[in-house]
Amino acid sequence: MDQVKLYWKNATADAVGAEHGVSAQELDDIAPRIAELHEQFNVERKAGNKRYRDLPYDDEMLKAVGREVKHFGRKCEILVVLGIGGSALGNIALHNALNSYTHNLSPKHKRPQLFVLDNVDPDQIRSVVEYITPRIRNTVINIISKSGETAETAAQFILFRDLLKKKLGKKYAASILATTDAKGGTLREICKDEGYRTLEVPDGVGGRFSVLSAVGLFSAAMTGIKIDKLLAGAAHMDTLLQSPDVRKNPAALIAAIHYILDRRGKNMAVMMPYSSSLYYLGDWFRQLWAESLGKKDGLNKTDVFAGQTPIKALGTTDQHSQVQLYREGPNDKVITFLEVQNFSRKLSIPKSMKHVETLKYLAGSDFQTLMNAEKLGTEYALLESQRPTLSVIFPKISPTTVGQFIYLYECAVSYMGGLYDINTYDQPAVQLGKDATYALMGKPGFDDLKTKINAAVAKRDETFLI
Amino acid sequence: MDQVKLYWKNATADAVGAEHGVSAQELDDIAPRIAELHEQFNVERKAGNKRYRDLPYDDEMLKAVGREVKHFGRKCEILVVLGIGGSALGNIALHNALNSYTHNLSPKHKRPQLFVLDNVDPDQIRSVVEYITPRIRNTVINIISKSGETAETAAQFILFRDLLKKKLGKKYAASILATTDAKGGTLREICKDEGYRTLEVPDGVGGRFSVLSAVGLFSAAMTGIKIDKLLAGAAHMDTLLQSPDVRKNPAALIAAIHYILDRRGKNMAVMMPYSSSLYYLGDWFRQLWAESLGKKDGLNKTDVFAGQTPIKALGTTDQHSQVQLYREGPNDKVITFLEVQNFSRKLSIPKSMKHVETLKYLAGSDFQTLMNAEKLGTEYALLESQRPTLSVIFPKISPTTVGQFIYLYECAVSYMGGLYDINTYDQPAVQLGKDATYALMGKPGFDDLKTKINAAVAKRDETFLI
Repeated sequence: MDQVKLYWKNATADAVGAEHGVSAQELDDIAPRIAELHEQFNVERKAGNKRYRDLPYDDEMLKAVGREVKHFGRKCEILVVLGIGGSALGNIALHNALNSYTHNLSPKHKRPQLFVLDNVDPDQIRSVVEYITPRIRNTVINIISKSGETAETAAQFILFRDLLKKKLGKKYAASILATTDAKGGTLREICKDEGYRTLEVPDGVGGRFSVLSAVGLFSAAMTGIKIDKLLAGAAHMDTLLQSPDVRKNPAALIAAIHYILDRRGKNMAVMMPYSSSLYYLGDWFRQLWAESLGKKDGLNKTDVFAGQTPIKALGTTDQHSQVQLYREGPNDKVITFLEVQNFSRKLSIPKSMKHVETLKYLAGSDFQTLMNAEKLGTEYALLESQRPTLSVIFPKISPTTVGQFIYLYECAVSYMGGLYDINTYDQPAVQLGKDATYALMGKPGFDDLKTKINAAVAKRDETFLI
Repeated sequence: MDQVKLYWKNATADAVGAEHGVSAQELDDIAPRIAELHEQFNVERKAGNKRYRDLPYDDEMLKAVGREVKHFGRKCEILVVLGIGGSALGNIALHNALNSYTHNLSPKHKRPQLFVLDNVDPDQIRSVVEYITPRIRNTVINIISKSGETAETAAQFILFRDLLKKKLGKKYAASILATTDAKGGTLREICKDEGYRTLEVPDGVGGRFSVLSAVGLFSAAMTGIKIDKLLAGAAHMDTLLQSPDVRKNPAALIAAIHYILDRRGKNMAVMMPYSSSLYYLGDWFRQLWAESLGKKDGLNKTDVFAGQTPIKALGTTDQHSQVQLYREGPNDKVITFLEVQNFSRKLSIPKSMKHVETLKYLAGSDFQTLMNAEKLGTEYALLESQRPTLSVIFPKISPTTVGQFIYLYECAVSYMGGLYDINTYDQPAVQLGKDATYALMGKPGFDDLKTKINAAVAKRDETFLI
């Protein structure tokens, strides 16, 4: 099986100096805590409290997804996923990583066009509605929401359900697949009332850990991605994460390096794929890192204000945008490159301009060689400026390696949260914004909050500068 | 004329407390320096050394772009822009802000599909090549490069020129428009040899300040954006930036707030549009902020390591990804919302689910109301957590307001660089990565560097963790 590799020497004190790299002593110091966390995770996993770790082995789920793909696949030309956060970012990441850049422009037989709508922008939604309306008979709507009450997803769903009803009449329900809680909640009730087909959002798996469940796998399989290979890749990574030794467990090591350097002021974690397809894994990573680690209160202390800010960047593109800052700005980042050793197919740079002296060196080379030279060049330039970097190396981009990567980082964030001594799996601060939205939208029970918000923005217009 | 507005009270000590907001005293303290910079910029501008400030008044340039649009517009069904960094990000931002989300899927008469290729990913490029090949007779290639020697753009250009030659024979040159230096350089020489039509990259305007020149305007105009309105918007903003008073000049105030808060540890500047269309202005902003401000050496001091890290986020999407961190993580960010008061057209949320108790509040509302409630809800939640925010408010998204926004932030970064006392307009640290790429690609004259790089990565494979 192809396997991703981890190169971490350029994050060490040996490579970038004692001030900016991780020392052997620091790894020794953190090793006992890592071993402790490792043991704790094993106990929790056995007790059924680390459900995301077992998704790669869930054959029932895989079968259920397969059943729905078989059911909806035949006639589906357009698949619209309605979801937000963990119900969207995994879908988007898998699609971009494993399907062609022109997937939606050049639809292939039995591989529907895919739209993942993870916002409530009226202009964007209207464009999609106008695009799909003439093709509505061959459109499938997959709403993904554990409760069905998330305002953004609910609003979208009401709109698309209405559209289906108007165009298809009573048969509208046959065009809807709901991925939702197995037992209860608003959406499950609607499913029962209206007779939708369903898949399950697994219990005990937070949105940001759910890409390898029905949440992320249905749209992937519909567009032709081999989801069994994704899970096999994740399961393979699981076998590589069995050591309690920080130096032998890549998830633990990634966590240790980021934690140690964050504590020394590197409050940003950049994920920089040298691959346009892998760029959207950066958004998936952003949610995983930010929501898991951004916590005011620890398990044993209050007001810890933990959290390293995740940033996505793109090689080579951001060499001409961000690398100036990454090299010469404050040394406040840990940068992880994703390197691809073999792109799908070779693409040569023709020799036709070899008569131009300044371009001669490109003649007869190829884009993969150029991409990897740029990556190594940037890594070297950052090393020269004593900036710590890691590289995750993909032998190729495949369901297997993408599955490995996803599982590796899910586990890494668990160790990282353990080191911060926080709850890695909740997101308490999201609620106030949701409540404020409810209040402003006039949902009953939020009158006091509405009064407070209105007071806070009273006379806003009078204080505009321009 | 519609005009963007600036709301800044939520970045003040009054709103978020003395520890995290800007105080009146701090603005008083910085006012003299701002006034000095303002005067200095005026002198420089009069001397012709702030060329980007005068682009909105360049009628010759506007005419030249119009001429090329007229020439290429008639038969063009696909426009491919080859460029990177400042030669691409402005094009992408304008396209996404002002054209429909489904622009490339639903081509309209005389409005070509647009591909801006700003990377050398072989899989991505091959997809585009395969897509355009059957339509090559109606494809126009716009290569944008001041020198023509940027490796990424040059490699792409060699490939696409070769494709045109193979498919069109001697007439291939008629499908190429080169936007390049007026007088010299590799690309200008090729243009002369092969007879391409050309537009000019203006002298004295760096890539990241060039979107309002031929660099950004040709693709915009080709896809139907009213570029005269863009420039009129920028020119209108210019009239709002005439005061030397930090409290009366929005560009100066934006700079002062970011500078003061960066000095107090808020080393990140988040740009968070509540609009999917404006999201790509975030990438344009990232380059503007990062390359302009990320500087090791100041004008009068060495080793200052200046620079605030720009981050793009998206409302409402990132409420379910980043806001947990923004509220509860370290208070290390200045967040700027972009708010849209009126989207293009109203999109109602149907009343058809009003029988569901938990969703009743949405029935009969609309997506714009929801979007703005979410924005205000998030702003309020951040205020509660003492996180400083700004809002730039777009009455609507139009060429006029987008032009205003671009000019506002270009000027803001000039003040910001002035406050750091750095050279805002160079990017010295980018060169080593370029040289390293040349070295690895075998360009003559870089042998020593190649030896050094190879030594740095020798035995890399032996040190992979997995």
